[in-house]
Amino acid sequence: MDTTLIVGYLASACSVTSFVPQVWKVLKTGDTAAISARMYTLTVVGFALWSAFGILKQEWPIILTNSICFFLSGFILIKKLWT
Amino acid sequence: MDTTLIVGYLASACSVTSFVPQVWKVLKTGDTAAISARMYTLTVVGFALWSAFGILKQEWPIILTNSICFFLSGFILIKKLWT
Repeated sequence: MDTTLIVGYLASACSVTSFVPQVWKVLKTGDTAAISARMYTLTVVGFALWSAFGILKQEWPIILTNSICFFLSGFILIKKLWT
Repeated sequence: MDTTLIVGYLASACSVTSFVPQVWKVLKTGDTAAISARMYTLTVVGFALWSAFGILKQEWPIILTNSICFFLSGFILIKKLWT
């Protein structure tokens, strides 16, 4: 594995690790009051576009990180909009 | 400009736009009580690693997004740790 890919996977691990606890809190408490639906829509669209960028570039660290974060943030946005 | 780069810049715009208001709020109020220093350290390290990944790959959308977010989040982390 080359250096670039190692850096990419470390970056990916940091991003997912720092994002998950916040997501977990919302899932556990069901409390989405503090979340701005407009801002979160941008976040979800951003993750979707980064995933697309990763797929087009065939960069696995980008695809993995952003598709995990896309599904997690998408779930929260649906929860926010539907409750 | 090819499609991949356009998708990358759109993704970049979404990421920065959704991150900036939160940063702005902290800068304006100076209130960092709700921020977990440990989690935020991961965020800052993550942005630094993504910037390095972007530089190694010479992908401008990745470099731009993550270096902007690195400086913003780094500033907040310093504020959190020193006050």
